[in-house]
Amino acid sequence: MAQRFQTLPGFRDFFPDECAARNHVFEIWRKVARRYGFVEYEGPILEPTALYQRKSGAEIVNQLFCFPDKGERDVSMRPELTPTLARMAAARQRDFRKPLRWFSIGQFFRYEKHQKGRGREFYQFNCDILGEDSVLADAELIALSIDLMRAFGFTEADFRIRVSDRNAWVDFATRNGVEGDGVTAFLQVIDKMERTPEEKVAGQLAALGLTLELIRDFIASGVEASEALQAILADLSARGVGHFVEVDLSIVRGLAYYTGPVFEIFDIGKGMRAVAGGGRYDQLVQLIGGVEMAACGFAMGDMVITDLIRETPAPNALLEAAVRDGQSVDVYIVLADPGKQAEAAALAQTLRLAGIRTLTPLAPAKVPKQFQAAEQSGASFAVVVGSEYPEVTIRNLRDRSEITTRPEGLIEALQGQ
Amino acid sequence: MAQRFQTLPGFRDFFPDECAARNHVFEIWRKVARRYGFVEYEGPILEPTALYQRKSGAEIVNQLFCFPDKGERDVSMRPELTPTLARMAAARQRDFRKPLRWFSIGQFFRYEKHQKGRGREFYQFNCDILGEDSVLADAELIALSIDLMRAFGFTEADFRIRVSDRNAWVDFATRNGVEGDGVTAFLQVIDKMERTPEEKVAGQLAALGLTLELIRDFIASGVEASEALQAILADLSARGVGHFVEVDLSIVRGLAYYTGPVFEIFDIGKGMRAVAGGGRYDQLVQLIGGVEMAACGFAMGDMVITDLIRETPAPNALLEAAVRDGQSVDVYIVLADPGKQAEAAALAQTLRLAGIRTLTPLAPAKVPKQFQAAEQSGASFAVVVGSEYPEVTIRNLRDRSEITTRPEGLIEALQGQ
Repeated sequence: MAQRFQTLPGFRDFFPDECAARNHVFEIWRKVARRYGFVEYEGPILEPTALYQRKSGAEIVNQLFCFPDKGERDVSMRPELTPTLARMAAARQRDFRKPLRWFSIGQFFRYEKHQKGRGREFYQFNCDILGEDSVLADAELIALSIDLMRAFGFTEADFRIRVSDRNAWVDFATRNGVEGDGVTAFLQVIDKMERTPEEKVAGQLAALGLTLELIRDFIASGVEASEALQAILADLSARGVGHFVEVDLSIVRGLAYYTGPVFEIFDIGKGMRAVAGGGRYDQLVQLIGGVEMAACGFAMGDMVITDLIRETPAPNALLEAAVRDGQSVDVYIVLADPGKQAEAAALAQTLRLAGIRTLTPLAPAKVPKQFQAAEQSGASFAVVVGSEYPEVTIRNLRDRSEITTRPEGLIEALQGQ
Repeated sequence: MAQRFQTLPGFRDFFPDECAARNHVFEIWRKVARRYGFVEYEGPILEPTALYQRKSGAEIVNQLFCFPDKGERDVSMRPELTPTLARMAAARQRDFRKPLRWFSIGQFFRYEKHQKGRGREFYQFNCDILGEDSVLADAELIALSIDLMRAFGFTEADFRIRVSDRNAWVDFATRNGVEGDGVTAFLQVIDKMERTPEEKVAGQLAALGLTLELIRDFIASGVEASEALQAILADLSARGVGHFVEVDLSIVRGLAYYTGPVFEIFDIGKGMRAVAGGGRYDQLVQLIGGVEMAACGFAMGDMVITDLIRETPAPNALLEAAVRDGQSVDVYIVLADPGKQAEAAALAQTLRLAGIRTLTPLAPAKVPKQFQAAEQSGASFAVVVGSEYPEVTIRNLRDRSEITTRPEGLIEALQGQ
């Protein structure tokens, strides 16, 4: 027997129902971003490995699909979009009015142990504002992320945005005598604090001349600790979405490149997963492209959000409806008289040119079998072409009602149903 | 100075205008396929290299982005979709009613010399019918490909479908005493005939016991040579699209895996390029997945069609309109009184929730500068929020007319414009 081929571990086949679910997520991403005036862009799936090393350090190669290409270039399948965005924005920064409001929907690759909610391949929505240092840009992204969640069908009962401010922590560190490389080490301690035994954290802090109590008091100060967060919350309240947001200074987001407010969307009740995250990164465009450009952005992957949608009734109902619609047709033409094949073909052409999704049998079949196929196709109507032609029968497959019409009146009759 | 990063040769950045053009092509592909009742699927971008070698032979690796992954698997960035489709269809063939009518829009990779119309990365529309051996399936795909071209804005003056039949050639070879491996060698001679010096062709044919005259007579017999082509043409004529089709037996399409009718779309007048191509391949699902399943399909890449659209006035006008629409907004909110920032933010939220694409300034700017930004954003309307609030002014940016309204009447007033 022939060797059977398998999908690579951590990669996915999208059969039609899964592809329709994916497209539903893409459409919400795209629709909400467009409402906020963002424009879509895309970069290459393969980039020089050095691009990712510049942002994340040499050890990033351990989780990359990287290889030498046939021209001896060290290349990588992209693990994220932000370095590409920084390269593109810097390369043509004179061609665009600032701020840039750009979004992208694309596929990414990381060689990791695959598990629920994490594959070696995933789609990600990236949404960034470049060339604007006002905190209103941060607020705009948070508002957009809230509206994304609402467009999926989630409510206040399902999710929160947690916001924090890396600058507030840097200020805190400086006030308390931590300096230079110590600040980065300190932020890493805070980032891992919730998942680290208390004694260990206390020891790490002591080495920096700090105490757990000091840290806890600072976290408890909440929004008081940051003017930027105060301005962001005021703006989100004016938009009427302040109740979706919580200040939580315990979040610092591990990535070293953030330089200001950071935020993440997390689900409440279903497992407190992070659904999306982002923040301000004012140094990256300079680092990658040699051009000073303030920037903030966030990303949402497709896997966690799709799991969450499927576990939550209202969003799942929207998804299921989109999946049905993505696979159904409007009309199934039943050929009751094989002698009318040409007439049925002409009718199908007319309907399709009018934008009506139409199926025809491609091989002879008994009429009951054709009606069965019509039902299974999800069609709203069967149009029966038989010996009475040019009289044709429209059967409404929902309520079984029938009317008759002629070819020239068919589209109108269907639209009137 | 920092090292500047470059896009890899043969790869593309899609800045917003290029991305909107790409999306226009995707939308036409998707819309027309859905009208024909096709459903969308997608496979992985990375597959085992052996999958492509099974279909095309070991030497295919010379044009693949292939590498050993961190788990020592020989993997390749996909150069085409058909082997994946055959794998997927075979794996779950019991779950789907035949025939499958599946389409896909995805990205592909080939390590080739890049030139106009050919990159190392490209998008491709794949459209296949599986599990149906009737020639009506072949005709359905040809009709769909014609409607694709018409949906792009092309007319009878711009393109033709050339159809041929590999079986007719195999029959011809057999009738003339060519057998076994000779048939494959013979088909390769015919495939390259137009691009090979006549003397050389004559020599190759002589080695098979054939003459140029015999071949030319056969090509001249046209549709008479194939019952399948006769049936396909009859069906396409019944659909009213027969005039887009020419029988041209000189086409055999090089790929060894075709087993019946083959066709290609080519442009007339602009350079006779092949825009798309396909045909019947009844053996591949067996070869890849061990399951007998008749199949036919075709593929269209994004690069040649986009070049052709840009060179042809009517299709280019449709593309340009889509590019403008993909980057413009409906409303730009002008903040004429900085004290009304919160009111403007609330108004933006209201408009966006109603699906209206809305921009707001993210930083203080003088009113004329805001109007300039509104013009450049492509907005249809500026909504001016100033000291008169709750009275707001709607300025129509096309004809400069103005009306005033209040926040609760804003959406209705905009929709009435």
